Amino acid sequence: METVALLDKERRHIERILERHLPASGDYPGRIHEAIRYSVLDGGKRLRPIMVIAAAEALGYDRSRIEKAACSIEFVHCCSLVLDDLPSMDNALKRRGRPTTHRVFGVATGLLSADALLMHAFKLVADNGVDVEADGVRIATAVRDLATAVGSYGMVGGQHVDLETASLESIDKETLEYIQTRKTGALFVVAATIGGTLLGAGTDDLAVLKKYAGALGLAYQIVDDILDAQGDPETLGKDVGKDANKQTYVTVHGVEKARETSRDLVREAGEALRALTGAETSVLGAMAAYCLERTS
Amino acid sequence: METVALLDKERRHIERILERHLPASGDYPGRIHEAIRYSVLDGGKRLRPIMVIAAAEALGYDRSRIEKAACSIEFVHCCSLVLDDLPSMDNALKRRGRPTTHRVFGVATGLLSADALLMHAFKLVADNGVDVEADGVRIATAVRDLATAVGSYGMVGGQHVDLETASLESIDKETLEYIQTRKTGALFVVAATIGGTLLGAGTDDLAVLKKYAGALGLAYQIVDDILDAQGDPETLGKDVGKDANKQTYVTVHGVEKARETSRDLVREAGEALRALTGAETSVLGAMAAYCLERTS
Repeated sequence: METVALLDKERRHIERILERHLPASGDYPGRIHEAIRYSVLDGGKRLRPIMVIAAAEALGYDRSRIEKAACSIEFVHCCSLVLDDLPSMDNALKRRGRPTTHRVFGVATGLLSADALLMHAFKLVADNGVDVEADGVRIATAVRDLATAVGSYGMVGGQHVDLETASLESIDKETLEYIQTRKTGALFVVAATIGGTLLGAGTDDLAVLKKYAGALGLAYQIVDDILDAQGDPETLGKDVGKDANKQTYVTVHGVEKARETSRDLVREAGEALRALTGAETSVLGAMAAYCLERTS
Repeated sequence: METVALLDKERRHIERILERHLPASGDYPGRIHEAIRYSVLDGGKRLRPIMVIAAAEALGYDRSRIEKAACSIEFVHCCSLVLDDLPSMDNALKRRGRPTTHRVFGVATGLLSADALLMHAFKLVADNGVDVEADGVRIATAVRDLATAVGSYGMVGGQHVDLETASLESIDKETLEYIQTRKTGALFVVAATIGGTLLGAGTDDLAVLKKYAGALGLAYQIVDDILDAQGDPETLGKDVGKDANKQTYVTVHGVEKARETSRDLVREAGEALRALTGAETSVLGAMAAYCLERTS
């Protein structure tokens, strides 16, 4: 199957399970749950939950055993987008072709619903652990990995340094790499490993998936920077050039070097997968290929 | 020992363990960790972590086994205060006699550090579970209870309805009770039960602690409303009358009824404790007594 068709099939599966594990919009207080559903059910690419499922299947586990954790990773991602878009952060007006959550629901409800979504994600990880009868260490590791990926040593740290350095004329390459690995790579790595963590995969397999997801996460972030500098706003569904006064891989290294590095990283990700001998890695491979093909 | 002296001794113990389990201010990115430490190390009353320790001891467990979870509950509480104080929420200028976190560090860093603190709390709960060799169900229950207390069916839900009804001329008693049980009671209940949950207490004991903490949480919230209406701003360390255009227990029921209800609830909390036969409940009892005595 072609890359796009394969990922599209996976995406439709994810849409069904997301719907199943979201709070009902009729639950009190309704406005919070409407905001949560607005932030999640918006036609996202669903790369992270697809990665959760595909990585678990590559290790030989049935996808039904890791559905809740897959949804939890997407919920965390959507939470981070809502927060990043807030007026005090990137002050974004559009996301995926629609007004951002805080513009529809107000800043307070946007912020509260994002944190509620984050809490819902942790509940789902715990529930998933109980469903598959994971022991205490496995559940604790999954919770700790997710909390670390989001917190001050992960996405929050990345977003903070991104905002702090936005007004600088230049930043060093180490700081840029810090921002980029934290903002995208950290959650990619948890997406690739949370299934194995809960279901009891070996450390060697987890190390392979971590390497794959780390390289791919950085590649995705660099391609994001290229698209932001050169992409079509209609296709992207959001404003382009919004990072024009921010330091990105493109502003620091130039677009040619950015393309080259993203290709190298995608190749690195693909090579990592080869260590999973005999495993079905076509979806993970397609995600790597898609990283370079995508236009949005 | 007198109520105040007893709680003060416990508070000093909590200050020591909070310091031990906070991220170091030198950790990169430093500004986030400074903001976290500013939000936590501010002379709070530490009622929730004291409750974690006291409830675990009442069930016969050693306090050293539940220190991390105790800190995690205080971190969640501090996170909620930082978020509640934001301009888009209560827009508070002072908290515990000092400028609020977002006024010192900016809105973006305040918000990010609050979410990082929340993540740190979940990490600590998971770590505590591993330390005491809790099984998967116990760790998952602790994580789920905490996530539920914070999320859209807990504190976030309470804060949302509080903000949404602030501009109304009146609200019904059920809505007020919804707000008050969610904003304070939900985390009190987790504080009282998380030790027993992780350490394997029986459901009867947990039900008693839940009843105690639910009644006491509501009593605290009502006394807060009385102090806000009548207290001394110097003693409180924050602006009073800030709820003047909000619906509180005092505006809905009047101050006499508020005093009566808080006394009834504190008695109810004390009576619940009697079911823990033979247990050392002096600190839990002191917390109930303090609720009515306090002036800040």
